[in-house]
Amino acid sequence: MTLLTSWIESANSADTDFPLNNLPYGVFSTDTLEPRCGVAIGDMVLDMAAIEAEDLILLHFDPVFDVPYWNDVMDLGPEAWATLRSRLIELLSTDSPDQAKVALHLIPMADVRLHMPIVVSEYTDFYAGRHHATNVGTMFRGAENALPPNWLHMPIGYNGRASTVVVSGTDIHRPNGQIKPADADRPYFGPSERLDIELELGAIVGTSTDLGDTPSVAQADEMIFGYVLLNDWSARDIQAWEYQPLGPFQAKAFATSISPWIVTKAALEPFRTSTPEREVDLLPYLAEPKPMLYDINLSVILQPDGGEQQVIARTNYNTMYYSAPQQLAHHASSGCAMNAGDLLGSGTISGAQKDARGSLLELSWGGAEPITLNDGTTRSFVHDGDTMILSGHAAGDGYRIGFGACAGTILPAKPTA
Amino acid sequence: MTLLTSWIESANSADTDFPLNNLPYGVFSTDTLEPRCGVAIGDMVLDMAAIEAEDLILLHFDPVFDVPYWNDVMDLGPEAWATLRSRLIELLSTDSPDQAKVALHLIPMADVRLHMPIVVSEYTDFYAGRHHATNVGTMFRGAENALPPNWLHMPIGYNGRASTVVVSGTDIHRPNGQIKPADADRPYFGPSERLDIELELGAIVGTSTDLGDTPSVAQADEMIFGYVLLNDWSARDIQAWEYQPLGPFQAKAFATSISPWIVTKAALEPFRTSTPEREVDLLPYLAEPKPMLYDINLSVILQPDGGEQQVIARTNYNTMYYSAPQQLAHHASSGCAMNAGDLLGSGTISGAQKDARGSLLELSWGGAEPITLNDGTTRSFVHDGDTMILSGHAAGDGYRIGFGACAGTILPAKPTA
Repeated sequence: MTLLTSWIESANSADTDFPLNNLPYGVFSTDTLEPRCGVAIGDMVLDMAAIEAEDLILLHFDPVFDVPYWNDVMDLGPEAWATLRSRLIELLSTDSPDQAKVALHLIPMADVRLHMPIVVSEYTDFYAGRHHATNVGTMFRGAENALPPNWLHMPIGYNGRASTVVVSGTDIHRPNGQIKPADADRPYFGPSERLDIELELGAIVGTSTDLGDTPSVAQADEMIFGYVLLNDWSARDIQAWEYQPLGPFQAKAFATSISPWIVTKAALEPFRTSTPEREVDLLPYLAEPKPMLYDINLSVILQPDGGEQQVIARTNYNTMYYSAPQQLAHHASSGCAMNAGDLLGSGTISGAQKDARGSLLELSWGGAEPITLNDGTTRSFVHDGDTMILSGHAAGDGYRIGFGACAGTILPAKPTA
Repeated sequence: MTLLTSWIESANSADTDFPLNNLPYGVFSTDTLEPRCGVAIGDMVLDMAAIEAEDLILLHFDPVFDVPYWNDVMDLGPEAWATLRSRLIELLSTDSPDQAKVALHLIPMADVRLHMPIVVSEYTDFYAGRHHATNVGTMFRGAENALPPNWLHMPIGYNGRASTVVVSGTDIHRPNGQIKPADADRPYFGPSERLDIELELGAIVGTSTDLGDTPSVAQADEMIFGYVLLNDWSARDIQAWEYQPLGPFQAKAFATSISPWIVTKAALEPFRTSTPEREVDLLPYLAEPKPMLYDINLSVILQPDGGEQQVIARTNYNTMYYSAPQQLAHHASSGCAMNAGDLLGSGTISGAQKDARGSLLELSWGGAEPITLNDGTTRSFVHDGDTMILSGHAAGDGYRIGFGACAGTILPAKPTA
C-alpha cells in the first residue's frame, strides 16, 4: 500500500507518525475543551465530538465521541469500526467535499493534552517473546532450564493490575516494597534498586464474550480493536522476592504506561507477518489461520534528567513467538469472559541481538554488564530522573504507521512511614 | 452483644442468618421488580429503592439504591455507611414508628432472585492460610520446603480475573484447558479431571486510593466495606501445568463464586480476633493495631446430583495468618491504586485437623486419600452434577451473623472444537 493523501499537508510527510493511512484514536483536552475522543492526522487532532455534533459522522443514535474513552465505540462492534474508518478517510482525503467544515475542528497537536484512550477493564500480561524468556530464564535458572517446559505449548500469561495503567507522560514514583538481599536473613521495606522497563505492545480487546465462550484464534483476531505501545514497569528486586509461587504482584502493580494513540488493526493490516515455525506443534485451539503478528519497528530510548534522548535498543514485534489473537484465544480457553477494554500485554519484545533487548535486565545482563550512555554515565537499571520512552512504527511505501511515544519519568520513591 | 429485636418476627429466631444485628446488603429482583439493592432481615428482603423513594432513608441527593450494585453506596464513604446502618436499625427495631410504611416494602426471601451485589472492579486472591500453604507446599515440594521463604514475611497474593466472579447459584461448566499427564511427553486440551474448590472469605474494598497512596493497616481496615464467602474454583491439573513461572491463570479464570449478601464490617465488629503470634516479626507496614480477623465458623458442603447435602469440612476464619487489612495494605504498598469494588480473596481457609481443610486437594491429599460420602461414593475432586456449598456464620449470644450460602453446581465440560 502507498500513502493516502490528505488535504492536511502535515499528514502527507513521509516521516509523520499519523498519515491518512493511520488515523489512530485517542482522548484529548484543551484549555477550553473537556476530555473527549480525537483522531490524530499529521500534526493535528480531529475533535470527534464536534464532528459528531455536526452530523459529519453518525455511528449511533446516541453520541459516542463526547466521552473520555473509546469504549462506547468499541461496544458498537467491528462493522461500526469499519464504517468509522472509511468515513474518516472520506472526510480527510484530498478530494473531500467537507474540507471546510472539518477544518474548523482540527486542533494543533501541540495545543492538546492527551489522556488514557480507554477505560481499561482488566489487564493481562503475557510472556511470549522467546528471546526475552530465554534471556531471563538463563539468568534465573541457567541455560539448560531457560524455557519452562510449558513455554513452547502455550502463551504464558498472568493477570496484572488495571487500576494503575497510565497514559504516556504520567510521572511515576519509584516503588517501595519488600526486598531481600541475597546475603540477608530477612527482607527490608524500601525503594526498589532494580527498577526496569519492559518494551511491549498492548492489544486492546474491542468486543466481549460471555462466561463459557471460547473464541477461536480467528475470532479472537476479529475481537481486537487496536494496539498501543506498553511499558510494563517492573521492580526486579521486589519481583525476585515475591514471585514464588504465585507470580508477580507488587513488582508490577505500581504502574504500566501506554501510548496515547490506539493504532487500529485496519491501519496495521498491510504489515501482517507470521509467527515463527514451531519447534513443537501447537494444540489445535492455538492454530493461526493467517499471519497474526505485525512488522513493527520498535525502539527504547533513555533520556537522563536534563540530558539528551538516546536509543538503547531496537527490535521488532515480528520476533514474537505468540500473537495477540493466540493469547486472547488462550485467555478465553477455560471459558473466561473477556470484555471490551481488556488490555493484553504482548510480553517483552527482545530480538536475538544484544542491542535488541527490550528490558534493562537483559541489556545489562542483570546488572553484570551496565550499558554506557553518551554522557559517560552507566545504567544497569532506571535512575531517578530518567525518562524512558518507547517508540514504534510500521514502515509502509512512502509512509509510516506510527504509535507516537510511550514515555514515563521516574521520580524518587516516597518516604516510607 | 445480644440479639437486637425486630418487629419482623423471623429476624428474632436464634437460628436465622439475618437478625437485626446483621443487615447484610444484596441485590435482588422479582417477577415485577428490576434488580436493585436490598437488605436481608429474617426471612424477608427490604426493598431499599422503595424505602429511598419514600424518603424513609436519605443518604445522598441522588438515589443510590435503585441500581443493581452497592458501589454507589460504597462511594459515599464510611460515615454514610454508619448512617445507613443506624437508620436501618431504627426502622426495623421493635419500637420503630415507621413499621407500617416499611412493612409495605418487605418481600419474602423465597420470592426473590439474588444477583451479584457489586460490580467487581478487580479481583485479587491471597494465600494467607498457613495450614493450607503448608499442606499444598508439602504435597508439591515436600515437608521441608512446604512454606516458600517469603511466606512468613508477606501475604502472598496474585491478581485474579474479575470478569468471571459470579453470584451463588450460578452453574459452572467444567473448564477445558491444557493438561499434561506426568507420563506424557506433551499436553492435551480437554476437561479438567481435578476440579476443586477453595473455601475463602472475600473482603470488599469500599473506598478508593490514588496511584502512589500507601494506606496503613488501620486505614486499610477502614476501607473495607464488608465480607462475603468466596469459592475460588480451581482446576488443579490445568494449574499444575501452567503456573510456572508466572502463577495461576486459566486454572482459576473460569469462575469464582461469592455469596449474595455482603456482611458489613459493623455487623462483624463483636467477633474480632487476632492473627496468631508471629514466628518472625513482620515489617512495620504490616503491623496490626488491633485484632483484624474474625471468629467465623465455616463449612464446606457437598451435594451430589439428586442426593443429600453433606458437610465435608468445618473450619474457622480465625485460623488465618494474615488479615484482610494486612492484605490490602500490602496490596497498596507499591503505590498500587485501589478502587471501591475491589474484591480480595483471603486464600483457602484450612484448620489444623484433617476434616478442617478448605479444598478437596487437601481433603483427599491430592487424590491419594479420597473421601467417602454417606451415599458410599468417593470424591477426590468435584464430579459433574455435584453442588458445592460454602456456609458461614459468627456465633453471638443468642443470635448469629450468617453469610447465607455460596453454592455452585458443576455442569459437564463443553465439547472442544
